[in-house]
Amino acid sequence: MIASEIESAAMRRAIALSAFGLGRTSPNPPVGCVVLDREGRVVGEGYHERKGEPHAEVNALAAAGDRARGGIAVVTLEPCNHHGRTPPCRQALLDAGIARTVIALIDPTSREEGGAARLRAAGVDVEVGVLADEARVVLGPWLYSLGTRRPQVTWAYRVGPDGRIRALTDAQVDALSGAVDVVLRGDGHVVEGVPGGHGTDAFHLPSLRAGVPLDDLCDALYDGGARSVLLASEREYAENFLRTGLVREAVVLVSSNGPSSTPSGEGASVLPPGFTLRDVSRIGDDLRLDARPQEQGQITDSGV
Amino acid sequence: MIASEIESAAMRRAIALSAFGLGRTSPNPPVGCVVLDREGRVVGEGYHERKGEPHAEVNALAAAGDRARGGIAVVTLEPCNHHGRTPPCRQALLDAGIARTVIALIDPTSREEGGAARLRAAGVDVEVGVLADEARVVLGPWLYSLGTRRPQVTWAYRVGPDGRIRALTDAQVDALSGAVDVVLRGDGHVVEGVPGGHGTDAFHLPSLRAGVPLDDLCDALYDGGARSVLLASEREYAENFLRTGLVREAVVLVSSNGPSSTPSGEGASVLPPGFTLRDVSRIGDDLRLDARPQEQGQITDSGV
Repeated sequence: MIASEIESAAMRRAIALSAFGLGRTSPNPPVGCVVLDREGRVVGEGYHERKGEPHAEVNALAAAGDRARGGIAVVTLEPCNHHGRTPPCRQALLDAGIARTVIALIDPTSREEGGAARLRAAGVDVEVGVLADEARVVLGPWLYSLGTRRPQVTWAYRVGPDGRIRALTDAQVDALSGAVDVVLRGDGHVVEGVPGGHGTDAFHLPSLRAGVPLDDLCDALYDGGARSVLLASEREYAENFLRTGLVREAVVLVSSNGPSSTPSGEGASVLPPGFTLRDVSRIGDDLRLDARPQEQGQITDSGV
Repeated sequence: MIASEIESAAMRRAIALSAFGLGRTSPNPPVGCVVLDREGRVVGEGYHERKGEPHAEVNALAAAGDRARGGIAVVTLEPCNHHGRTPPCRQALLDAGIARTVIALIDPTSREEGGAARLRAAGVDVEVGVLADEARVVLGPWLYSLGTRRPQVTWAYRVGPDGRIRALTDAQVDALSGAVDVVLRGDGHVVEGVPGGHGTDAFHLPSLRAGVPLDDLCDALYDGGARSVLLASEREYAENFLRTGLVREAVVLVSSNGPSSTPSGEGASVLPPGFTLRDVSRIGDDLRLDARPQEQGQITDSGV
């Protein structure tokens, strides 16, 4: 059976819901789930709201109640198969009488022993890979972090009318920090963890000072449970991250004052070296540029 | 000669500057320009700020003054070659003594008689196609509009906790309207032109009422000079646009209330039919989803 239009619509809804968990679930993934009854009607929705709280499937099944029996679970990541802080979601789906499970992405930590295989073995119809690219829009940083055992780093900075790179203002950091686990401040001396609703004890980071090797810093962040980091620093500190290829995304806020009437006479720059522009949006009178390293994104110099 | 790192950096700066013109230059394109001196130093920057005002090249050359002589002009769109409200930019570049011009995108209206050909004939070294894909991030809607002789339409709406589509609030419309020429309101009766700093006479639109055929509406918008439209309507009115393939982009604001505890029992939906998710960002506690029609964007169902 191929995923129907109804299931695709449910998957997009599940992906959207999952994004509410960004910055709050690490080291768990932000996952969303929609439950359809036998007739394809939505009878339950849920997402993993916070580390230690129920997983997406459990929330969606609770909302659906008995209406889940014989129905379909649409979930952005393979249901877990292990006893952690919560019982395995695989078992919750079986207990609820789900007849079919539609999954966007396989959990790379699960392999053959994952929830999908166990659900199939129990007689559930399982389809994998539905809207996988779209699910990666939300789960991409978590998957990247898992694969590299390092948090995904986004460097955010502002560019003034003179074309120079400066650290973000506090208000700008606040506006960008809601979807990440940890903010690294501009002076490079302090790691301020726990935006986005984490308790102050959510990450167990060592006391870090300038000069700590980045490998050690990234290990400490990953081991502490961080999967995404907003690097809110000036150029000098960020260059160490750039040199070692640790920055996977850049957000550039360009001031509204427009071009300088007294150009600096230096080279113009607005994106980090080797990054390509992916998106531009207006925020009030300012601009926001989104960029990624070249190998990751679109082809440039493709001619006209 | 191949565009150098310095020229690429200058092009990215020119692209960023050009975006300040979005929503203000139509029917002209939003263009940016950076002028480098013989040593590759930035000596002038500029963009087309508003319809009827000087073009990007003229602003950048004015800032550079004599330092432009023997230098390089880096510009996001082919310099114009016609006498309109302003003299042709091609001539301004020649008068300033520019020795080389680096262009991202050719102006499709110019053909062989365009500024690039005329600059080459006058002995200027001209390179075309530098960072063309990145320049399209800003110039894409204008190019699309020119090619179809219709404005590029973005449908923006919000999705509440019950999963239903609703028209944006006034504040949400205000936040999104800065980069477009015209806002079409939700009741379908009124065209409110002229956000983004246009004077009230910037567009000459007929008095439009519900029931006006969309072909006539789009013709009127295009002929009136609009190249980008924000459709801020509910689903019913938007469906006419969707059916005729007029919507090229969707922006969906998802309320922070998260999943409903009393699901509607209808099919889940969050994106328009046939659209794929391209980006997710958090705005405060709400989500913003960016989507495009499937044929335009990424491949879905690509497996894992």
